[in-house]
Amino acid sequence: MTTIAFHIIGQDAKSAARTGILATPHGLIETPVFMPVGTKATVKAMTPEELEQLGATIVLANTFHLALRPGDELVHELGGLHRFMNWKRAILTDSGGFQVFSLSKLNKITDEGVAFRSPLDGSMIFLTPEKSVRIQENLGADIIMCFDECPPYPASYDYVKASSERTARWAERCKAAHRREDQALFGIVQGGVYTELRAWSARATVAIDFPGYAIGGLSVGEPKNEMIAALGVMNELLPRERPRYLMGVGTPEDFFTGVRHGVDMFDCVMPTRTARNGRLYTNEGLINIRNACYTRDPRPISESCACYTCRNYSRAYVRHLMMSNEILGARLTTLHNLFYFCDLMSRIRDGIKRGNLAEVEEHALAAYRNPAQTP
Amino acid sequence: MTTIAFHIIGQDAKSAARTGILATPHGLIETPVFMPVGTKATVKAMTPEELEQLGATIVLANTFHLALRPGDELVHELGGLHRFMNWKRAILTDSGGFQVFSLSKLNKITDEGVAFRSPLDGSMIFLTPEKSVRIQENLGADIIMCFDECPPYPASYDYVKASSERTARWAERCKAAHRREDQALFGIVQGGVYTELRAWSARATVAIDFPGYAIGGLSVGEPKNEMIAALGVMNELLPRERPRYLMGVGTPEDFFTGVRHGVDMFDCVMPTRTARNGRLYTNEGLINIRNACYTRDPRPISESCACYTCRNYSRAYVRHLMMSNEILGARLTTLHNLFYFCDLMSRIRDGIKRGNLAEVEEHALAAYRNPAQTP
Repeated sequence: MTTIAFHIIGQDAKSAARTGILATPHGLIETPVFMPVGTKATVKAMTPEELEQLGATIVLANTFHLALRPGDELVHELGGLHRFMNWKRAILTDSGGFQVFSLSKLNKITDEGVAFRSPLDGSMIFLTPEKSVRIQENLGADIIMCFDECPPYPASYDYVKASSERTARWAERCKAAHRREDQALFGIVQGGVYTELRAWSARATVAIDFPGYAIGGLSVGEPKNEMIAALGVMNELLPRERPRYLMGVGTPEDFFTGVRHGVDMFDCVMPTRTARNGRLYTNEGLINIRNACYTRDPRPISESCACYTCRNYSRAYVRHLMMSNEILGARLTTLHNLFYFCDLMSRIRDGIKRGNLAEVEEHALAAYRNPAQTP
Repeated sequence: MTTIAFHIIGQDAKSAARTGILATPHGLIETPVFMPVGTKATVKAMTPEELEQLGATIVLANTFHLALRPGDELVHELGGLHRFMNWKRAILTDSGGFQVFSLSKLNKITDEGVAFRSPLDGSMIFLTPEKSVRIQENLGADIIMCFDECPPYPASYDYVKASSERTARWAERCKAAHRREDQALFGIVQGGVYTELRAWSARATVAIDFPGYAIGGLSVGEPKNEMIAALGVMNELLPRERPRYLMGVGTPEDFFTGVRHGVDMFDCVMPTRTARNGRLYTNEGLINIRNACYTRDPRPISESCACYTCRNYSRAYVRHLMMSNEILGARLTTLHNLFYFCDLMSRIRDGIKRGNLAEVEEHALAAYRNPAQTP
């Protein structure tokens, strides 16, 4: 039994790319989709209305951060994440696994779970698959994730093998612990860059049977060709009729790579984080609005962009705001970058439907492949 | 000749309070009015659309800051402040005088002008009445201010006398230097807390003849009764048919004091600055949303408030955002406080029109006079 439904409505002739509709308790999501990251129950600098207006249909929130502050029980008491943050569309929470390993110190992994120190107050916390599921049930997202270990890169074959096996055992425990019928629990495939382990992990996870599958442990520093090889295995072994989510990815280039390997969902902090540093994605390439060359530039960030920022403000003004550390600067740049990412996904969906994905890719990536062309 | 027109449309029977319409090249302003402060060509954390929606009809920008960065010539080149910051309603710029004395070090005053070090790069800058007017012409606000000296409090009678006389001489030079016909240049009355000097300064400034008058040098640390005495002199001596602007004031209580002494315009950084620290104005009193008592509070900041924040978010969520230093926290609190200030002015205008200003005051200030009642 699952609360979501996935319908593939278009398929690329030359690759595994597909476009579809993912129905959730909080609305329909056209795939492939980019999910803005709202770590602490807020996509940094944005209101929910702005996110909807720029085309976001699902956001990601981080279980690790929210469990620490304000606490999942508080969120539950206040009606769950949707109500807490006033976001009426779909939400996906991660399991906290990735952050336990990447953000906390002194973590100790056993088969039972992971012990780590809270980065907020240094207290010891013990997180298990069952606890991760309970926290995510309290948060109340539409899609929740199995608790997993994301091995670092590089890591030895033996380490990744033991880790992937543990992640598979944890996935069974997560499924057994999960009670809420208005949430879909996704499995996570690991296996690092070892295609044999990727295949094992995919088969083991699919055998447990989840309504959707995430591809974890990629874009953690490995060469592109290793990521592509792993994606190839995933595309072969994950059931075609279920949604696939490539975690923590990525760049505009990565989207095309992922989509061609049958990926439906993406998330990444990059558009929001780099925006606050002044790095802006445009059809004409990446620009850093803090550069002196934009000091007196009356043009919008991108003349081909239809976002609120580009319709109303000059590069000179946005640069002035960024140089002055004004909050409105972070707002305008974040809005622009998220618009670009969501709009790029919309163009990718159209490209799949119309059979001209290659053209869409060429148009979108030309400026990124040749930085000399950047504005 | 002036570009603004002021029409008094209602007068309180028991005080000098009046309500009117100030017509500017960028729209009508109902007075008494609160002007949000947009120091660096942005009201911190707000878009122009949000300001309009919460009822702002004029904002203030700071000549001193903008002359330093991005520079008034750049703003002029990009079409002036309105276009630069995408604000379609009225703008008032101060003269830079106040900041020269309060923010810069090593300032040296002569009759010619003031020499001071730039707080940005330490370079020496020499500002004169003529330069202040030229900068403000470049910025292009609807209402601009004479270059003045705001004496500190306390200051000796002799110091304030000499300073007020110089400010009057500077006012003549400002008027002589002012060329733009689409801007109104306001005079500024000084005189500190010495009613005799206040009277002298008012007469001297009115003799030069300006389309509006600002009352400077109050709310700089003097006791309330001294401020009230000075306002009494101002009300007597400033022409009733011209708009009056009490600079840098103030609190909800100060608004009623000012309005009863015939003041039409107010500005203050307080609602925006305190919002970013979590201090929120409500009809029920002042609250600090960071207090632990709001951790699980599902109510809006104020149940009697109609602002976007109060219609959509709980105290618990706003507190969570503030404790996490999230940008959305600064947005929601700023919007709430500005709404409160603009709405309070709207209620004051209604009170004058309907003859129940005392009731409006009692309702608005009761909670502030008795902090035990705060929510």
